[in-house]
Amino acid sequence: MIDLAQLSDEAGRARIIISGVRPEIEHGRFAVKRTVGEKVAVEADIFTDGHDAVAAVVLYRYEQEAHWRLAPLHALGNDRWRGQFLVTKLGRYRYTLRAWIDRFASWREGVHKKLVAGQDVSVELLMGARLLGEASFRAAAEDAAVLEEWASLLRDAPETVLAQHGLEVLPAEVVQLMAKYPDQRFAVTYDKELLVTVDRERARFSAWYELFPRSCAPEPGRHGSFKDCEARLPYIAAMGFDVVYLPPIHPIGRTHRKGKNNTLAASPDDPGSPWAIGAAEGGHTAIHPQLGALEDFRHFIAQARTYGIEVAMDLAFQCSPDHPYVREHPEWFRHRPDGSIQYAENPPKQYQDVYPLDFETNEWRALWEELRRVTCFWIDQGVRIFRVDNPHTKPFHFWAWLIETIKQRYPEVIFLAEAFTRPKVMRYLAQLGFTQSYTYFTWRNTKDELTHYFTELTKTDMQEYFRPHVWPNTPDILSEYLQLGGRPAFIVRLVLAATLSANYGIYGPAFELCEHRARERGSEEYLNSEKYEIRHWNLHQPESLKDIIARINAIRRDNPALQQNQYLSFHPVENPQLLCYSKTDESRANVILVVVNLDPHHTHAGWVELALDELGLDARQTYQVHDLLGDARYLWQGARNYVELNPQVAPAHIFRIRRHLRTERDFDYYM
Amino acid sequence: MIDLAQLSDEAGRARIIISGVRPEIEHGRFAVKRTVGEKVAVEADIFTDGHDAVAAVVLYRYEQEAHWRLAPLHALGNDRWRGQFLVTKLGRYRYTLRAWIDRFASWREGVHKKLVAGQDVSVELLMGARLLGEASFRAAAEDAAVLEEWASLLRDAPETVLAQHGLEVLPAEVVQLMAKYPDQRFAVTYDKELLVTVDRERARFSAWYELFPRSCAPEPGRHGSFKDCEARLPYIAAMGFDVVYLPPIHPIGRTHRKGKNNTLAASPDDPGSPWAIGAAEGGHTAIHPQLGALEDFRHFIAQARTYGIEVAMDLAFQCSPDHPYVREHPEWFRHRPDGSIQYAENPPKQYQDVYPLDFETNEWRALWEELRRVTCFWIDQGVRIFRVDNPHTKPFHFWAWLIETIKQRYPEVIFLAEAFTRPKVMRYLAQLGFTQSYTYFTWRNTKDELTHYFTELTKTDMQEYFRPHVWPNTPDILSEYLQLGGRPAFIVRLVLAATLSANYGIYGPAFELCEHRARERGSEEYLNSEKYEIRHWNLHQPESLKDIIARINAIRRDNPALQQNQYLSFHPVENPQLLCYSKTDESRANVILVVVNLDPHHTHAGWVELALDELGLDARQTYQVHDLLGDARYLWQGARNYVELNPQVAPAHIFRIRRHLRTERDFDYYM
Repeated sequence: MIDLAQLSDEAGRARIIISGVRPEIEHGRFAVKRTVGEKVAVEADIFTDGHDAVAAVVLYRYEQEAHWRLAPLHALGNDRWRGQFLVTKLGRYRYTLRAWIDRFASWREGVHKKLVAGQDVSVELLMGARLLGEASFRAAAEDAAVLEEWASLLRDAPETVLAQHGLEVLPAEVVQLMAKYPDQRFAVTYDKELLVTVDRERARFSAWYELFPRSCAPEPGRHGSFKDCEARLPYIAAMGFDVVYLPPIHPIGRTHRKGKNNTLAASPDDPGSPWAIGAAEGGHTAIHPQLGALEDFRHFIAQARTYGIEVAMDLAFQCSPDHPYVREHPEWFRHRPDGSIQYAENPPKQYQDVYPLDFETNEWRALWEELRRVTCFWIDQGVRIFRVDNPHTKPFHFWAWLIETIKQRYPEVIFLAEAFTRPKVMRYLAQLGFTQSYTYFTWRNTKDELTHYFTELTKTDMQEYFRPHVWPNTPDILSEYLQLGGRPAFIVRLVLAATLSANYGIYGPAFELCEHRARERGSEEYLNSEKYEIRHWNLHQPESLKDIIARINAIRRDNPALQQNQYLSFHPVENPQLLCYSKTDESRANVILVVVNLDPHHTHAGWVELALDELGLDARQTYQVHDLLGDARYLWQGARNYVELNPQVAPAHIFRIRRHLRTERDFDYYM
Repeated sequence: MIDLAQLSDEAGRARIIISGVRPEIEHGRFAVKRTVGEKVAVEADIFTDGHDAVAAVVLYRYEQEAHWRLAPLHALGNDRWRGQFLVTKLGRYRYTLRAWIDRFASWREGVHKKLVAGQDVSVELLMGARLLGEASFRAAAEDAAVLEEWASLLRDAPETVLAQHGLEVLPAEVVQLMAKYPDQRFAVTYDKELLVTVDRERARFSAWYELFPRSCAPEPGRHGSFKDCEARLPYIAAMGFDVVYLPPIHPIGRTHRKGKNNTLAASPDDPGSPWAIGAAEGGHTAIHPQLGALEDFRHFIAQARTYGIEVAMDLAFQCSPDHPYVREHPEWFRHRPDGSIQYAENPPKQYQDVYPLDFETNEWRALWEELRRVTCFWIDQGVRIFRVDNPHTKPFHFWAWLIETIKQRYPEVIFLAEAFTRPKVMRYLAQLGFTQSYTYFTWRNTKDELTHYFTELTKTDMQEYFRPHVWPNTPDILSEYLQLGGRPAFIVRLVLAATLSANYGIYGPAFELCEHRARERGSEEYLNSEKYEIRHWNLHQPESLKDIIARINAIRRDNPALQQNQYLSFHPVENPQLLCYSKTDESRANVILVVVNLDPHHTHAGWVELALDELGLDARQTYQVHDLLGDARYLWQGARNYVELNPQVAPAHIFRIRRHLRTERDFDYYM
């Protein structure tokens, strides 16, 4: 109920509506995401009653700074306005909008129309003098003098002013001065302050390599260590990866330990799943003794850094029955009527080797604090990237709190949500703060599926908060496409991952060695999965994709178009097995065009049909497409061009488009 | 920044997210609209972490009542939920949502799956006993006894329970009892209470007739009066209208009075525009002396009521230079530097006979109160419907306040927004509270235009708050289509208005007498417009549409399908001049199918293609279409059927579809 007495003098006379603001996530509760140096484009419906002109700005500030900065908003038509600002610092920004009736612009427009219609404007010029006079009180001293002078002229010598400036009435410098000192008495500020989380570049653009440290020993049969991982760094760096992600490195429980191929009965020398965290040797802040000591881990991180590689850690908040928490904090677990602790289950599946934490415990505050302490412990060791295991099985509010409080102290930290779950849950986890998110890419194989999914990721509000991180394989997922498609299938999925998404990763060496054996027909689990045993890989197999991977990662580094997802665009090809898409940078100086044959078995050909405008191409001019994968160059003209891809030779082109080819017209003497 | 110490024990363990609630207008600031007896369907995304089952309800209450009522929400899939409730009283309702983890449902599902998989469930049955035992504490005495009994059985005789109920574990009555006493410890309530404005039926379904009282005298040359209007009532009632809307009935200013055809120089006996309100005789609460006295107006209202007709008044908040406010409240007007008062203008157009009120005045509170006093004055005379003139030239907050505070005391009052302006302004006026809204219908003539516009009005969020009120003509708008299309054009626009929209009106007698003369070529203004002179109409012209109008209004009254817009659906016809659409009531018991020939000059024919499913028709059965306009009946079968419309005979069909025609199979002895 609106009580007139309680409405302020300003609110009662505020005539502007600001509505439909974009971006705005969950009514402004959550932040949009950017990286340092990116811009935030803001749109809103802004309008007033009647015919008055409106002026509007975006207000924005780095959260720790008190002072708002301004960026202008421009009318797009249909009462929609748009403006933008740059974010230049790690951390959080706030933004909102302000708009007001632009009396001076309304006045200028009215006078102009009356002059055109030959009407008398003598009273209008007096009104103009009044507006200038009022503005002079808001102006800095020297500006005030100019405004006062023009106010006097309008008042005392209107004919002279009209004779000099005609339909414009006043010179441009006076108009600019007036814009500098608007009358904001009844200005309206949008009722919410919206948030931007600004991450570092690696949050937007990264190539991850996942490997099991225990499988890194050079000789078969030995448990690998961080030292062995260090020896593997040159190999990983040569492929061009910039993040190495390790599954949990903690002591592994013995009770109900799983055997090879996820069998219930482990033999005494089975190493167990690294996700069954905690044993007599310690829990989430301890290191598996066979991997090394804490110093060895820190040394590994430092060594990786010399290769430009960052180490990402797994945050898997769950416990083996042997975890110290089980003894020290029984109140953090759910107890069954028979006195036992409730293990993880998704009936009829049972995971007796894992106890989930009970977030409904009365001691939830202590639990939250402890899990944050764990996270900070690893930050103290130098870790700045966390891959979070199954975040969708812990409460949303916990993650929002953890990520926000951690990022307030360490804004450079990256959290990747490993949630393969329902669409709304995945979106919400991204909204509440996860820096990057796993996707459905692994199960999107056909042209329709890929086009539809990546259009959703890049052309809806999702692009404001959901940073896709795509994986052709993971230790849990060997897709049917990879099982059955042979080496060409691995190349297809690699090219798609690396060019459709600025963040991608592979689980190696299984991927580059084209490991395709599943545990059984119809299963996506690896045969002899590293989750349950130590594997020894022959990295020098001639089949290895390492050179192609290196080439593709180099292409990504050289081409800004591939370092973000905003300017992704699909182009029609008649053949349903051929997928064609382009990516450009914001300026369209860098244009990458990808054509992939999705059929790993047969050669396919077809005519691509490019949206030339989007690519900044002139329909009348020849342009060169340079295949950065195979190094071939072709001259194309117009929208329709022929492609043919034999998967045994190369299942994809990654073209760089070079626009302006020289012709005879470029020579001086051609004229 | 989230402070853990400040998070309550409930909030910290709340695991449910409620988001994407529909309907929700402007973040819940404004109300959706319904009429008494309608339902409100509510949808939301509701989900939790992990695998637990969720239960959810809509909470709703009449605003004056403290007690929330519950309506269940059902899962639609993809974490979307839907429920509904009925609104049965005039005024405002509130609604919100509540959801919780359904521990009992999760338990039942788990036990069921384990039983199917042949797993041991002995501990699970003890857990079930615990859940039943806990519920018994929340239950009423006799329910508690039942729950306790079953808890004991599960604890002490699990084999017996399993043997009796198998995979269901527990009998249906226990499951129902458990649903009655859910564990809502960590229930989450949506953080906003949303609003429903409930109007009376006439807000949703009405047929308006606009006329100038001063033109109602039976003989030419005399100024009409309310008495003359009373004599006109049988004529209006015979056509089937239920609202008579009068342009302003107040004294008219003399200063700068406009002459015939909007000329600047009025002759002494020109009556002036009724919208130039206020003279020596009084302002917004006075009545034009030649129309009669206040008692005459009240008598007219009472007489109209006996015909089932309500009188709608014009609220035009603006003043002639002679209005008493100008003298008594100069502070409510804007003053120009030469001392004169600012008249209305939209440069280069000038309206010297109208002074707008200055809503930016320091005395805005007094101004708002006075305008509300004016509104209440007419409510006191018995007026309950206001057509608001140009609401888009007064501040939005003023309208929100006026409408909300008036409707709190008089929830039966209807405000129609006469705003022909930009789309977002029109939508916002509807959102902030106007009961009905003028539309762009007048300028939507082609099949594409009509289809697109009415799809927007009825199939987007607009249908929650924007009630279209469509007019084929108004005193300001004689569309080109009517100017050039002859009598068939008038019938076409009448049929479209009366069947596309549940609320429609005509400005008569200009409309039924097919007045089509414009002031000049290219203008939409009437020649000899009643806005500036008194007209005398020959109501008994043989051309008059009054009988067709009567027929159409009768069809509207007889068919619930035409009394709302929710179930409007367009059906393809190959001929671009033929428009085909259907309307049904919610139950689809009443189905109306309209086919209109939009070309007023030529006969057109084509095959309509009906969406049989939407109309509840069986593709294999013959159905009858009964033309309620011409009374012809046709037997149709399947989706494609032939229509042919000669505009000189009848430019439209308004079919009622009768489904179940008897066949030999309906006879008992057929078997």
